[in-house]
Amino acid sequence: MTIDETPGGRPPSSAHEIERYGGLFAKRTRGMTSSAMRDMMAVTARPEVISLATGLPDTTTFPAEDFAWLMARVAVDSSAAALQYGPTDGLDDVRRCIVEVMAAEGTEVEIDDIMVTTGGQQVIDLVCRAFLDPGDVVVAEAPTYPGAVPCFNSFQADVVQIAMDEHGMRMDVLEETLARLKREGRRPKFIYTIPNFQNPGGVTMSLERRRALVKIAAEQELVILEDNPYGLLRYEGEPLPTLYSLDGGRYVIYLGTFSKILSAGLRLGWTAAPKPILERMNLGKQAADLCSSPLNQYFVAAYFQHRDWRTYLTQLRTIYRRRRDVMLAALEEYFPAEATFTRPQGGLFLWATLPDYLDTTDLLARALREHVAFVPGRAAYLDGRGGSEMRLNFSGVNEDEIREGVRRIGKVIAEQVALYGTLTGQKPAPKRGADVVEFRRREAS
Amino acid sequence: MTIDETPGGRPPSSAHEIERYGGLFAKRTRGMTSSAMRDMMAVTARPEVISLATGLPDTTTFPAEDFAWLMARVAVDSSAAALQYGPTDGLDDVRRCIVEVMAAEGTEVEIDDIMVTTGGQQVIDLVCRAFLDPGDVVVAEAPTYPGAVPCFNSFQADVVQIAMDEHGMRMDVLEETLARLKREGRRPKFIYTIPNFQNPGGVTMSLERRRALVKIAAEQELVILEDNPYGLLRYEGEPLPTLYSLDGGRYVIYLGTFSKILSAGLRLGWTAAPKPILERMNLGKQAADLCSSPLNQYFVAAYFQHRDWRTYLTQLRTIYRRRRDVMLAALEEYFPAEATFTRPQGGLFLWATLPDYLDTTDLLARALREHVAFVPGRAAYLDGRGGSEMRLNFSGVNEDEIREGVRRIGKVIAEQVALYGTLTGQKPAPKRGADVVEFRRREAS
Repeated sequence: MTIDETPGGRPPSSAHEIERYGGLFAKRTRGMTSSAMRDMMAVTARPEVISLATGLPDTTTFPAEDFAWLMARVAVDSSAAALQYGPTDGLDDVRRCIVEVMAAEGTEVEIDDIMVTTGGQQVIDLVCRAFLDPGDVVVAEAPTYPGAVPCFNSFQADVVQIAMDEHGMRMDVLEETLARLKREGRRPKFIYTIPNFQNPGGVTMSLERRRALVKIAAEQELVILEDNPYGLLRYEGEPLPTLYSLDGGRYVIYLGTFSKILSAGLRLGWTAAPKPILERMNLGKQAADLCSSPLNQYFVAAYFQHRDWRTYLTQLRTIYRRRRDVMLAALEEYFPAEATFTRPQGGLFLWATLPDYLDTTDLLARALREHVAFVPGRAAYLDGRGGSEMRLNFSGVNEDEIREGVRRIGKVIAEQVALYGTLTGQKPAPKRGADVVEFRRREAS
Repeated sequence: MTIDETPGGRPPSSAHEIERYGGLFAKRTRGMTSSAMRDMMAVTARPEVISLATGLPDTTTFPAEDFAWLMARVAVDSSAAALQYGPTDGLDDVRRCIVEVMAAEGTEVEIDDIMVTTGGQQVIDLVCRAFLDPGDVVVAEAPTYPGAVPCFNSFQADVVQIAMDEHGMRMDVLEETLARLKREGRRPKFIYTIPNFQNPGGVTMSLERRRALVKIAAEQELVILEDNPYGLLRYEGEPLPTLYSLDGGRYVIYLGTFSKILSAGLRLGWTAAPKPILERMNLGKQAADLCSSPLNQYFVAAYFQHRDWRTYLTQLRTIYRRRRDVMLAALEEYFPAEATFTRPQGGLFLWATLPDYLDTTDLLARALREHVAFVPGRAAYLDGRGGSEMRLNFSGVNEDEIREGVRRIGKVIAEQVALYGTLTGQKPAPKRGADVVEFRRREAS
């Protein structure tokens, strides 16, 4: 969705200019819209704005000396190769690092099952490219990752979103939906899920549901795209096995990324997938960008060789855990009693649901005047739902800013709640107790 | 096309494995094939092989000390920002560098007309994404860039290739072809051309034809994709204006890249395009990879600030000019009289045409046994033509290797020519004079 209220970015083209090429653009461009987070980057880059919108890792925690030292090593050891084209699948040394990262989540994989990609985003794109004809169904969670929405749209997918509760995607709703799609003759190609600390919902899929999902996929011959950028950013509770490991490499395509455990600026992610699928994705990548930056790949290899990536990860976990706790406390303090929000065990985001009569897209315009930003809920749905919901990020700014940002959003909400009370004669609801911190149940689309 | 004869890479999937997902893959994947150069990377990476195949710049010429020093600057000045996500359009500092590079070719552009991309390859992909519905016609040169072929195929384009002569794409053939397509009701969306030192043809489009092409596009409301990776690598003759500058930013989408003037390992290119087109390409890029590596973008900005990019370019030109001359002399010496080849005024490639009874795909298998590689001509056509043609690169290996590589290919050719002579009773043709070094005329498809 486009946040039309949001200032910044280039001015839109004139009608006359657009008309010149109007007949030439592909049909797929009609459904292509800007991702809410991308649109907001110009606004949230302004220093006076506290952004709880974009999912930025805190890159100030990575020592600049290490960055310089590691790049010096790359220059000494591999300058010419780092500056050159590389293989489409990625460097073997980096694929070995990936094997190590996946093993840390208890997932066994071989380097031949892995392809390095230009960020995790490219995996979503290459999977769409490999599987989607116009009108094909993609099954996703409700709400789903806002950055996947423009991708699904650009492949003219028909996205069906499945309700979640505090244990993740609801399997009963999924099975009903798959049965209905079958009756309607609509073809689902893959199920897109973020099982750990879901973006944006903040919930984690239970082990029981993971087993059920893998079973359903195998029985109905559907592919699962398991998007797992945050799995290693767990702040409490026991790690759960990946869908990829439960499935044994038959129907699950795994998406991983270095963005959240090292650096998003490298634009390096990966996929692990069954070979016939990996081959199609490799062909798609040849067409898309030939290979991912060898220079950045050599940096990753040097980092894994000369530094302890687990130590840095532990540091990130400590920082983000505290920030999550600060955000939860601030929400208790500043959000109205009628609001509910999720309590993520890890990751970067939580999801807040406001009273139905509030519209978070309207609210964002007011919040930006208070120099604070969030992602309005509609960005996470393809059917206009999510109007009174919002995604809040707690990784990108410090604890004071989180508290102040939530306070400002709370203030804007309170004004709107009071206004609603004045207009309708209703009293604002009483302050909420901690027991309503839960994921509100929703119906499937 | 796939070079089945070529060893290396992962073993293909079994029929059973492919069958599991067979019904799930998108229709577009049926036409998706591997680029010949990509397939050969595994083979040509072996140290004993002289590769005249891949279009590798000589990255050993970039000082490792400069690489380390510039990265240290990035670390000191912008560590956190370099390791973070960035804007989809690219950093303003890099877009200012691009304005400077394009000015060096006499092309005026503003930073708002520019988007930074993940290599020049991504521009081709984003243009296809913005314009192509299945079955739409793309007009390209014959032969065309082998790396564009998988991209066109993956968008199910109907590619019509236009014959070239020593002055580039033939405008008479183009006009006839456009008229015929119109009669047949087939919709051309854009014309893809590499006007300078064409890849793979090695020829340069004359000023007269550039003017004619821009006029045709405006009259018939067709978009031109001007792919110009090598424009600044001119070794003789006068620079010619870009199509983008002749058109005034109405119908031409410009593709540039840092791959050939700085480093391919950065995976950074750019597009300059009319605003409504740039907006669609930006949406496509959000879906594809969010943004191109900020780390590498900061490196480019530091390079342009602290080093003289023109000095390095002059050095590259000197090296590549000599290598081109060595290759031309070796071809004169070692190729049979019946072979013709182009004499490029710049760039990285030349195109050789062998007697019709020789098949360069067969020849490659034999050449690889002699530890030398080239790109067989069929990779540059979408219709199986090019069977007796080949692309030769002169930038990636040193002068001795060029001479030795051409000698080995010449030896393999001579064996085949002699075999043909024995079988048919014909005498091999006499040694050719220099006057037949020309681009052989071909018919349009």
